[in-house]
Amino acid sequence: MKMHRQFINRKEHLICDALDGFLRSSGGANLARLDGYPSIKVILRTDQDPALVAIVAGGGSGHEPAHAGLVGAGILTAAVCGELFASPSVDAVLAAIMAVTGNAGCLLIFKNYMGDRLNFGLAAERARALGVKIEIVIVKDDISLPAISQARGIAGVLFVEKIAGHFAAEGASLRTVAKMAQKAADELVSIGVALSSCTLPGIGREDRIPVGKIELGLGIHGEPGVEQIDYSGARQTVDLMAKRLFGAVRPARAYALLINNLGSTTPLEMNLLTHDVLTGKHGAKIKLVLGPAALVTSLDMHGFSLSLLPLTGQFENALRSPSAVTAWPLVRTHLKPNLIRLPVALKSKALPASKNQALADIVLRACKILLEAEARLNALDAKVGDGDTGSTLALLARHLKAVLPTLPLAREAHFFAAVSSVISRTMGGSSGVLLGILFAAAGHAAAAGATWQKALLAGLEMMMTYGGAAPGDRTLIDALAPALLILSKKGDLPSAACAARAGADATAKMTRAKVGRASYLSAANLQGIADPGAEAVALLLEGLIR
Amino acid sequence: MKMHRQFINRKEHLICDALDGFLRSSGGANLARLDGYPSIKVILRTDQDPALVAIVAGGGSGHEPAHAGLVGAGILTAAVCGELFASPSVDAVLAAIMAVTGNAGCLLIFKNYMGDRLNFGLAAERARALGVKIEIVIVKDDISLPAISQARGIAGVLFVEKIAGHFAAEGASLRTVAKMAQKAADELVSIGVALSSCTLPGIGREDRIPVGKIELGLGIHGEPGVEQIDYSGARQTVDLMAKRLFGAVRPARAYALLINNLGSTTPLEMNLLTHDVLTGKHGAKIKLVLGPAALVTSLDMHGFSLSLLPLTGQFENALRSPSAVTAWPLVRTHLKPNLIRLPVALKSKALPASKNQALADIVLRACKILLEAEARLNALDAKVGDGDTGSTLALLARHLKAVLPTLPLAREAHFFAAVSSVISRTMGGSSGVLLGILFAAAGHAAAAGATWQKALLAGLEMMMTYGGAAPGDRTLIDALAPALLILSKKGDLPSAACAARAGADATAKMTRAKVGRASYLSAANLQGIADPGAEAVALLLEGLIR
Repeated sequence: MKMHRQFINRKEHLICDALDGFLRSSGGANLARLDGYPSIKVILRTDQDPALVAIVAGGGSGHEPAHAGLVGAGILTAAVCGELFASPSVDAVLAAIMAVTGNAGCLLIFKNYMGDRLNFGLAAERARALGVKIEIVIVKDDISLPAISQARGIAGVLFVEKIAGHFAAEGASLRTVAKMAQKAADELVSIGVALSSCTLPGIGREDRIPVGKIELGLGIHGEPGVEQIDYSGARQTVDLMAKRLFGAVRPARAYALLINNLGSTTPLEMNLLTHDVLTGKHGAKIKLVLGPAALVTSLDMHGFSLSLLPLTGQFENALRSPSAVTAWPLVRTHLKPNLIRLPVALKSKALPASKNQALADIVLRACKILLEAEARLNALDAKVGDGDTGSTLALLARHLKAVLPTLPLAREAHFFAAVSSVISRTMGGSSGVLLGILFAAAGHAAAAGATWQKALLAGLEMMMTYGGAAPGDRTLIDALAPALLILSKKGDLPSAACAARAGADATAKMTRAKVGRASYLSAANLQGIADPGAEAVALLLEGLIR
Repeated sequence: MKMHRQFINRKEHLICDALDGFLRSSGGANLARLDGYPSIKVILRTDQDPALVAIVAGGGSGHEPAHAGLVGAGILTAAVCGELFASPSVDAVLAAIMAVTGNAGCLLIFKNYMGDRLNFGLAAERARALGVKIEIVIVKDDISLPAISQARGIAGVLFVEKIAGHFAAEGASLRTVAKMAQKAADELVSIGVALSSCTLPGIGREDRIPVGKIELGLGIHGEPGVEQIDYSGARQTVDLMAKRLFGAVRPARAYALLINNLGSTTPLEMNLLTHDVLTGKHGAKIKLVLGPAALVTSLDMHGFSLSLLPLTGQFENALRSPSAVTAWPLVRTHLKPNLIRLPVALKSKALPASKNQALADIVLRACKILLEAEARLNALDAKVGDGDTGSTLALLARHLKAVLPTLPLAREAHFFAAVSSVISRTMGGSSGVLLGILFAAAGHAAAAGATWQKALLAGLEMMMTYGGAAPGDRTLIDALAPALLILSKKGDLPSAACAARAGADATAKMTRAKVGRASYLSAANLQGIADPGAEAVALLLEGLIR
């Protein structure tokens, strides 16, 4: 046992406060509770048509959203909530029945546990003595204990509640509602597994499941499973459960499957388990899928249960019929994932090569400058980063030289877009994406009519937006921004190169980097060392005017 | 770090298989995916009106149901999913944009993380270069790092997605959709806490939070919180979070509150936290409540976040507008729990006393017999139970004698009902409820016209139904059933007493008890000892004919 902290206050008020939290956040759902705290905890509809059969269910708390979360048009008329994992009292059940039942009578649904049988049972008999028409359905869907005559009730109870709620809403007689609910209860099978038990408030979690094992056939109150079996992954577990379920259920053409999260299983795991059961041996027989969702939980148990109901037209209709209940999952049809072809635009719609000797000359010179600066930039980066700025830019330069004859040089917009592609294919890490953004945005601006100088400035602005760095943050922006600003104001290249140099040199005096690896270094480590990216920009421009 | 088992197969396929499980269980929701696994993981609507603005969102996986679970009419047009906690690639984002965007353009929504900014950013620029009209909203709602200029995006992104989805569905222009989404992103504030970090598949869970502490201001990828503070319960935690949120948010007349489960917080805790925030100092200002629900999770993190949005008429309308998305919670109004008075029928509607000297004599004799048998029955029970059968029945007998003058003796139906009440008020445990059921059901049968003999037999049957025991299970039924059977067939009391004696004696030969404490005992312990309940029935009937 390990003490576990939880988001609670005093244990004594937990259930009442939680129910009030549920009600407080339910405005518009037409819910109320009976004024009987703390002993009588009954959540009920305020919009029940008194001419219809009332559906009352309940049991111990700790299984939320069941059953209070299922009160509403189309499912339950009232839910009777006990303390944690404890049956509600006879008086509480009787209060629920008397509060919601009209001349059409009441169907009482509960799970097959001794405490519930006794308290709901006596309440039902008392209600009968008071003249209430009442029928009972006891849910015993757990197939994990085949030898026992008194199977437990687990998550399959939801099928029974929805089917009963549907027929009641349709105006069926108590006899019909009870008959349909009993048929569902009779035919339904469930089984659960867990990798951990649940954490009891103020007590903790029992660490009883050894590594490499999984509990099969556990109850929903932290009670041990029927057997501990070897655990070798989701797929094998689901296959075993499906084998047992389909071995026990009545043969039918199609089934509804409820995939219930017992507590802390992640949505990723639940979706994966859904995949594994629906693509497994019996998957094709599953027509309707409820969930995956946390519906009948066991606090924070890391486990799940599967419940299977043979479908009839009436059951399918009942399960699919709309309800006003938030916790009820939309009932979906099992289908093969629908695949849509990738958009054509993605498939390397490379623009055709075009000639522009002046531009080609500039690109070749730029590549030469970057190749020559490789060692120097690496050395600089080794002092404030991981020593690869020079190599990364040299790699880009080599690649750019190689593909130059295939690039669309005739139009600046096309050229910038092509450079963006080359950069993001060649350079890794965030710097590759950031330069890719700069050239893509420049291409877009050029296409919209901007001069190449203004287009590059627009690209820089986009790079700053996405990258989150600005001048003064000790990045290549400190050299690039002043240079592009001068160029976009029709300044000449020598002035731009001069501004880049001043900017690069200024980074050596910046004692705090805001982004990148240099941001992990102290002022003492940075002092006197220029940012390698800014230095690269300065070297490039200085080289181009030489 | 502790290795933790999970419901997965191979880690490499986890996200793709989980997404396919999601799609397989979504029939009827008009969803599909782009055919680009494993690198391109895009879930999209198949029923998008191409004349409307497309809403594309996404980010790393591990936050389910966000964002794939929010694709559908009224919210997202497509979701781009990365690997676990890793941004999707530029190509994946671009594929999503190109697949769903028509002439009306596309709004791209993502959270403020470097990886997302870069990949979504470059994809957006590429899409622009391909002629797509595109706008961007970056969500930075986390207020836990006040000093940082780049606040993280957490669960508040859902407000932005719903508001954008609403205006897009209404046919608004890209400019309007982006403006409303940006306004929501600008005004929204969020903060999160956790009692544990999340379990990384194949790695485990970092146990970094000491007992008695809680992490405030954590991220959604398992990254540590901004501060570890003393933990002294749900209420104090919620008060602190509310104080920070309301201190940071724009003053407004009313707010919408999103209560987001980060993973493994139980529904009970979530409802309690909802109660505490809505009844706290600022609770009255909260008008709309979204959740509590698991919406933007961090795998199985035991924590939650609160997000606050100042409401305008447009925002309220957008949040309340219906959507076809299962994961989207119904937006509810905050209201005080609605209390309904307890049904009058419960309030001790005691039937008036009435006389029947013959019956009173029998009751007094029965009480005398049970009082005299106390020690003997206790001794018998001490061998196979907890030694209190005699005392329990003597307690009942004493109470029955005392209240006899107040009971309605003139009609059997009323008398049986009254005895049922006396029994369940006096006797504890299951035996009290079971005998209460017997007499309640007998009263009901008598009221319907049955003779007292047949009424008692009907009561016995009900007791067997609820109690789950039958003849042969070594209970009082083994004496009671044969006796009541004879009586109901118009046999005389001596024959019934004789049958009860035979039945009680037979229990001494039964080597297995199916219910009650005796069921824990071995055959050797039971051999030769009669069941105390059956013995009590035999003694009672033998006494009555003496």
